[in-house]
Amino acid sequence: MTNQAPSSPGTMWGGRFDSGPVELMQRINASHPFDRKLWQQDIRQSRAHAEMLKGQGLISASDHQAIVEGLTQVEAEIASGAFSWSDELEDIHMHVEHRLTEIAGPAGKRLHTARSRNDQVATSMRLWVRDTLDQLDAGLRALQSALLDHADRHAGSIMPGFTHLQPAQPVTLGHHLLAYVEMLDRDRGRIRDARDRLNECPLGAAALAGTPFPVDREETAQALGFRQPMRNSIDAVSDRDFVLEVLSTAVIAAVHLSRLAEELVLWSTPAFGFVSLPDAFSTGSSIMPQKRNPDAAELVRGKSGRILGAFVAIATVLKALPLAYAKDLQEDKEPLFDAADALAVSVAALTGMMEALSFNTAAMRAMAEVGHPTATDLADWLVSKAEMPFRDAHAAAGRAVRLAEERSCRLDELSLSDLQSVVPEANADVFDVLGIEASLGRRTSAGGAAPALVRLAAAAARARLT
Amino acid sequence: MTNQAPSSPGTMWGGRFDSGPVELMQRINASHPFDRKLWQQDIRQSRAHAEMLKGQGLISASDHQAIVEGLTQVEAEIASGAFSWSDELEDIHMHVEHRLTEIAGPAGKRLHTARSRNDQVATSMRLWVRDTLDQLDAGLRALQSALLDHADRHAGSIMPGFTHLQPAQPVTLGHHLLAYVEMLDRDRGRIRDARDRLNECPLGAAALAGTPFPVDREETAQALGFRQPMRNSIDAVSDRDFVLEVLSTAVIAAVHLSRLAEELVLWSTPAFGFVSLPDAFSTGSSIMPQKRNPDAAELVRGKSGRILGAFVAIATVLKALPLAYAKDLQEDKEPLFDAADALAVSVAALTGMMEALSFNTAAMRAMAEVGHPTATDLADWLVSKAEMPFRDAHAAAGRAVRLAEERSCRLDELSLSDLQSVVPEANADVFDVLGIEASLGRRTSAGGAAPALVRLAAAAARARLT
Amino acid sequence: MTNQAPSSPGTMWGGRFDSGPVELMQRINASHPFDRKLWQQDIRQSRAHAEMLKGQGLISASDHQAIVEGLTQVEAEIASGAFSWSDELEDIHMHVEHRLTEIAGPAGKRLHTARSRNDQVATSMRLWVRDTLDQLDAGLRALQSALLDHADRHAGSIMPGFTHLQPAQPVTLGHHLLAYVEMLDRDRGRIRDARDRLNECPLGAAALAGTPFPVDREETAQALGFRQPMRNSIDAVSDRDFVLEVLSTAVIAAVHLSRLAEELVLWSTPAFGFVSLPDAFSTGSSIMPQKRNPDAAELVRGKSGRILGAFVAIATVLKALPLAYAKDLQEDKEPLFDAADALAVSVAALTGMMEALSFNTAAMRAMAEVGHPTATDLADWLVSKAEMPFRDAHAAAGRAVRLAEERSCRLDELSLSDLQSVVPEANADVFDVLGIEASLGRRTSAGGAAPALVRLAAAAARARLT
Amino acid sequence: MTNQAPSSPGTMWGGRFDSGPVELMQRINASHPFDRKLWQQDIRQSRAHAEMLKGQGLISASDHQAIVEGLTQVEAEIASGAFSWSDELEDIHMHVEHRLTEIAGPAGKRLHTARSRNDQVATSMRLWVRDTLDQLDAGLRALQSALLDHADRHAGSIMPGFTHLQPAQPVTLGHHLLAYVEMLDRDRGRIRDARDRLNECPLGAAALAGTPFPVDREETAQALGFRQPMRNSIDAVSDRDFVLEVLSTAVIAAVHLSRLAEELVLWSTPAFGFVSLPDAFSTGSSIMPQKRNPDAAELVRGKSGRILGAFVAIATVLKALPLAYAKDLQEDKEPLFDAADALAVSVAALTGMMEALSFNTAAMRAMAEVGHPTATDLADWLVSKAEMPFRDAHAAAGRAVRLAEERSCRLDELSLSDLQSVVPEANADVFDVLGIEASLGRRTSAGGAAPALVRLAAAAARARLT
Repeated sequence: MTNQAPSSPGTMWGGRFDSGPVELMQRINASHPFDRKLWQQDIRQSRAHAEMLKGQGLISASDHQAIVEGLTQVEAEIASGAFSWSDELEDIHMHVEHRLTEIAGPAGKRLHTARSRNDQVATSMRLWVRDTLDQLDAGLRALQSALLDHADRHAGSIMPGFTHLQPAQPVTLGHHLLAYVEMLDRDRGRIRDARDRLNECPLGAAALAGTPFPVDREETAQALGFRQPMRNSIDAVSDRDFVLEVLSTAVIAAVHLSRLAEELVLWSTPAFGFVSLPDAFSTGSSIMPQKRNPDAAELVRGKSGRILGAFVAIATVLKALPLAYAKDLQEDKEPLFDAADALAVSVAALTGMMEALSFNTAAMRAMAEVGHPTATDLADWLVSKAEMPFRDAHAAAGRAVRLAEERSCRLDELSLSDLQSVVPEANADVFDVLGIEASLGRRTSAGGAAPALVRLAAAAARARLT
Repeated sequence: MTNQAPSSPGTMWGGRFDSGPVELMQRINASHPFDRKLWQQDIRQSRAHAEMLKGQGLISASDHQAIVEGLTQVEAEIASGAFSWSDELEDIHMHVEHRLTEIAGPAGKRLHTARSRNDQVATSMRLWVRDTLDQLDAGLRALQSALLDHADRHAGSIMPGFTHLQPAQPVTLGHHLLAYVEMLDRDRGRIRDARDRLNECPLGAAALAGTPFPVDREETAQALGFRQPMRNSIDAVSDRDFVLEVLSTAVIAAVHLSRLAEELVLWSTPAFGFVSLPDAFSTGSSIMPQKRNPDAAELVRGKSGRILGAFVAIATVLKALPLAYAKDLQEDKEPLFDAADALAVSVAALTGMMEALSFNTAAMRAMAEVGHPTATDLADWLVSKAEMPFRDAHAAAGRAVRLAEERSCRLDELSLSDLQSVVPEANADVFDVLGIEASLGRRTSAGGAAPALVRLAAAAARARLT
Repeated sequence: MTNQAPSSPGTMWGGRFDSGPVELMQRINASHPFDRKLWQQDIRQSRAHAEMLKGQGLISASDHQAIVEGLTQVEAEIASGAFSWSDELEDIHMHVEHRLTEIAGPAGKRLHTARSRNDQVATSMRLWVRDTLDQLDAGLRALQSALLDHADRHAGSIMPGFTHLQPAQPVTLGHHLLAYVEMLDRDRGRIRDARDRLNECPLGAAALAGTPFPVDREETAQALGFRQPMRNSIDAVSDRDFVLEVLSTAVIAAVHLSRLAEELVLWSTPAFGFVSLPDAFSTGSSIMPQKRNPDAAELVRGKSGRILGAFVAIATVLKALPLAYAKDLQEDKEPLFDAADALAVSVAALTGMMEALSFNTAAMRAMAEVGHPTATDLADWLVSKAEMPFRDAHAAAGRAVRLAEERSCRLDELSLSDLQSVVPEANADVFDVLGIEASLGRRTSAGGAAPALVRLAAAAARARLT
Repeated sequence: MTNQAPSSPGTMWGGRFDSGPVELMQRINASHPFDRKLWQQDIRQSRAHAEMLKGQGLISASDHQAIVEGLTQVEAEIASGAFSWSDELEDIHMHVEHRLTEIAGPAGKRLHTARSRNDQVATSMRLWVRDTLDQLDAGLRALQSALLDHADRHAGSIMPGFTHLQPAQPVTLGHHLLAYVEMLDRDRGRIRDARDRLNECPLGAAALAGTPFPVDREETAQALGFRQPMRNSIDAVSDRDFVLEVLSTAVIAAVHLSRLAEELVLWSTPAFGFVSLPDAFSTGSSIMPQKRNPDAAELVRGKSGRILGAFVAIATVLKALPLAYAKDLQEDKEPLFDAADALAVSVAALTGMMEALSFNTAAMRAMAEVGHPTATDLADWLVSKAEMPFRDAHAAAGRAVRLAEERSCRLDELSLSDLQSVVPEANADVFDVLGIEASLGRRTSAGGAAPALVRLAAAAARARLT
């Protein structure tokens, strides 16, 4: 048996090569500046792999012990910052193994038995994504909670409901915020589904075809918390649809956050004045001393673009790639890591803002009067009380709106006779439905804006959270 | 009660307007050239809505009957092509209602009671997407079935397994095709999850705030096969995350199909010669008489770009859009419809090709010998039989490969003494693992390429299909 | 010489095929439903090609005459709608040739001498893109003109200048609109550059390698208005970077338009009330009688997503495509056509809106007072008059703003003694710079917001237009 | 005059704020981890700005000297790594100014006179992009040169020309490589155009409205090498179309590189065997000792996705952003920097590979015989010599191909009588055009594949380079 010193860096796959990679190639190839992010996952899986190798008699107990102790030391070195990184060792996997072999000797060289970097990196990625999804879910849950605090408090705070950014019908702030709670609910559902689907273990697929060693893939899968081993070894090393699925989930969540951020930007401009952003989440200007800018909301809004870019990047990378592993797949990491950071910071920022801001309910209430938002109520009243077909009632209410615009008054400020001049079917009772509160209170269809319903909806949402 | 003639086209929202839309605006605004695709869904929901209105006493039984009969006539006219379309009526919804009112008189004008186009279009879209997902799932299942036919037949047909498009280790054609069956399994899982998540009913959200009419949203939801009404009326009309989720699912599936298509393009070029495409799926050249081009596979490959473009389009449309409905949302339809068509035709084309093509197993077998694909087996043998650490065994096998390259022979054609000159630990037994069949037969780890496993995997996959 | 009847449809490349394409394949392959858009360009180039063939003695004068007359008839049939389309003839090119051969007999079959569909379609595409760029340039110019009308009229109309959508410094409406004129100038510059770069002729590249016939590529290039023939025959048929360049130009222009559209949406909501959209460019609601929605602006805003999607689609299609022509390239057309339509309609809609809308200068003026927009002027005054370093002046002005906020007054409403309590360096002269008009009038650095400069800038921009 | 100590970090815009930003907000807001990349550009423009301030009498000569010396010291500190970075100072601009003020005292606080970070960052970005474009252009030129070396050497080396990855017609390797030289020529043209268009100076636009100080924008523009000052101050600080244009140019170039990379991957797989990648640009496997993978080419192929993602990211960020500056614009940097790196490394890698690889012309020549690539020549001969219309000649050649396939021979191995059995018009002369060399030699139309033309084209391309 040949028992050489630990391979020198860079020769791990060098047995058949005449010359090593040139410096440029090393730089292109070096993925450790970003894939070191997977270091904990890499060590975690190496422990499980070593344990299995021992159990199957593929390494000795003493080799196993040397590996385990060595991994613990490597882990400590990386955690403390003492670990030394080098472009000569391409990636996190080779860094760990190389250092392990320095520490543990030949035992270290036995760790890679029945394993390839192809299944190794796929396993680390799945572990990392799983951890990240769990953190993201917790973050979204916290944002929902912050939204629910306001929704409950403002279940009856009247605000203008907009469509096309034009006044439509009165709603309440609570009702509006609950719409976001619903969106985040679905985002969290997507996270759950993605997590469940990716939670299968590639380890043991080796390079692409499996291995002749009698490995126990059920054991490593279980040890690492996976639902089961992946069923096909080629698929295990060549597919990255879990990355795409997670990124698409992130895009959708980021789009939701961007919409909330946009509303915070709008609502904090003086034209609206619906919200006062706390100093802590505002920034000033290097030139204009009076400025208080909603930078955090703007950054959240902008980061949705970054996350969409990441999805596009990886989808394009994967497009038309023959099986099995190809180096293009290394390009999956940076966009994914960047998008995960962008989403995490967006969620944290919105949660922080939401917890710290205060709403100017008076400004909302005042704007809720603008633009004849109870015209639909007039039409509905004509349908109910005057048996007018809806289309005709709609036209009649339109005539009343024109009259009010000419008079520069609200609909409920028209005199009855004026109103009857364009809507002969009207009588004094109609004024019962033309006020904002009355209109709102009558929006009692399931899921509607009536304050009583909003209160119940907030409570139900809270219950689902816990 | 005013009982006017049916509104003239274009005045449906015109009560308060001085002048109608100019021709350009009509053209911009007209969505019926594409949203007419929703006609069946629109009529389906109008039936459910009318039934509910009657049940709740919001329209009379006779109005209900007039509506139902009118809708049936409209349906027949559209189906037969007799229906007349006009840019003066913006969308499918106004076309149906306008024609209904011509047929049914004032009853037709009552159909829109307690409904807005905002909830109406959201409901139609969900119904259409649900139908489309069901068709897509069936299509993917058929493609899986076609793949399984070959996988079963070729469970033992040796082909070179590639990584980086370089020979890696021998696998079988069946094993390779089963990787795609796995991918499609996950695609179908995503379709199921998306379908379940979107299967909630927006109807009754009205414009954005609900309605004062005593509607029964549970009834309409149930009648249309939805799991439940959507919980928040603002969310119901303003969110399109279901479109994004479905498109992201389509992107991922299309990426999978593009990879299979790429392999068909590669395998049918004479350099590989692994597959003969049937005439029916090949096309020729207008100038080169000898050509037989894999056009169908190329189109499938290309269409993945179109589908990704659709996802980007809609994500960008939705980004930073304040609540609730905005006209931008109309831009969700064409990309969605186009992507759905592109994916459907891709699935059909690949299924047809897969059913009709034949594999050239001799060419695959021959290429499986190229490139020393059993070098890993030599390394593994050294680990198992010579107790060499894997890293050292890897280096030793690398030396053997270099020698074989110098000799221009296969690894198993080296003499024992030659082999021992670079790998002293080798003995005559090593030749047992250096042949292709031996190597393949030993890939018996779970999910591995050994023919016996592939046969079982194909059977299990077939069982899951049915 | 064999002189058969015109080929039956679908057999144009069928000499070596046993069976024709199945119906599915025909449907996949049929591009005439969209590429018929190129019919004029196809006929135009066929005329040039035929003329050249005659000039080089490759076809007889009588064949040439039969072709020319036949093409004129085909042209008339397509223009009138009398032309009959069939999926059996894949594309516009085969439709024209097939019909020509019906009309002109064997001469029609000679037209394709020394030409392949590969160079033919590349030529038609370039011609079509060139025509489209010319139209687009004219459209953008018209929009600039409409912007300039307002810019000139409102060179002195005060509006709040925003950064972060917060009041920053006073500007004028004219100055703000001139920013868009600048953006469109660059868009038009990109159009010019793209047009010039793509204006080379692929015709004569044939399938990919050129042709043995003595064609005169200079002649056809010149006849079709191209700068020169493309220099490399493989490049001529396989590259589509001109499509990408044009689409990227369209994306950038669409982003510009989306920003203007967003401002129109904001400015027409009552919270701002800066602009009244004309009825002709507003739409109402099917349920809410009072609504006047800025749909046209919203559609313009949304269409930017569609155009970005098109760029992504084609970039993804082209990625990693080996040379030369591949069928994937057929996927370049629909996204391009769709994006071109979307951009054209966006430009037209914004131009129409801009021509028809009116600005509410009083509302703009009123909002220009909000938010202490002259705080920078105070700081600048301290720098100029009190020799304070800018950073210290900035801090001092910030203290003045806080005081004004506590007093709920404007900066120029503070008493001098109050002001001196936080800014001891202030004296009575400082009030000269704290008013809106004064602040604005002093923004006289080149390109600044001072009304006098804006007037000059508008005139200069107008001069560049003409 | 108040003469305070240098502002403490983080209070630069803090005069009116009660509480500083929370830690999360600081982290969100801190852009110096990436925008420090602009440090040289920031200092360069500060020098030009200070010089102008002095010239206009806005700062004293002694303040100017203190600033200049201070900037030199800051520059040295950053270059040497001695500079200390802190999240309390948001960005590179505040870092430089803060440190400058520590060094230069009150003079440092005067540097920001008549400048805002809005015009400052826009100026730095344009300077950086300009520098980057110059480097990129040089890189692409080097790649062209490497391609031309092979093109010249292999002007006559026969290889199969492919369409649809099926054998089409014989070409030469030189001709094929020249197609890429053409693509890169256009890429460089786009770089030139983008550079020229962005080469305008935003400095002096200040926050958005210009400044009351008598600045000389012509002077700073000229000092920094810009063509002219930007014409509109709002446009100057709010637009980023130059970033989009540069990224779109990068996308198109990356697509070109991805196509070349794809061909290197294909050509180095044993099925083709056209190229031997040098060891320096190949990598091995951690498990498979025999592997030599074209990793560098695969990474280049993959990076096109990253660059496309960056374009999408920024287009989405900019979409529908109201004027003027918004914080979202900070999101333009990381995608741009990442894409620039990705493209630079791709160009370098391909250049290195191209310089180091060798072509296996024998394998190319052998594959050029496969698939009857001279069938078009047979058809063309029939047109020329037998006056057959091209369509009929095409069908006749198709019959000849079928016969050769049945005989399993090449077209030029058919006997004359066999050939005449399906093509009665054939005579012995036809064999002159059925050989590969003959076919190739006759591709003499301008831009065609004939070796003599290729030689001239390579020389002309070389002349254009120098």
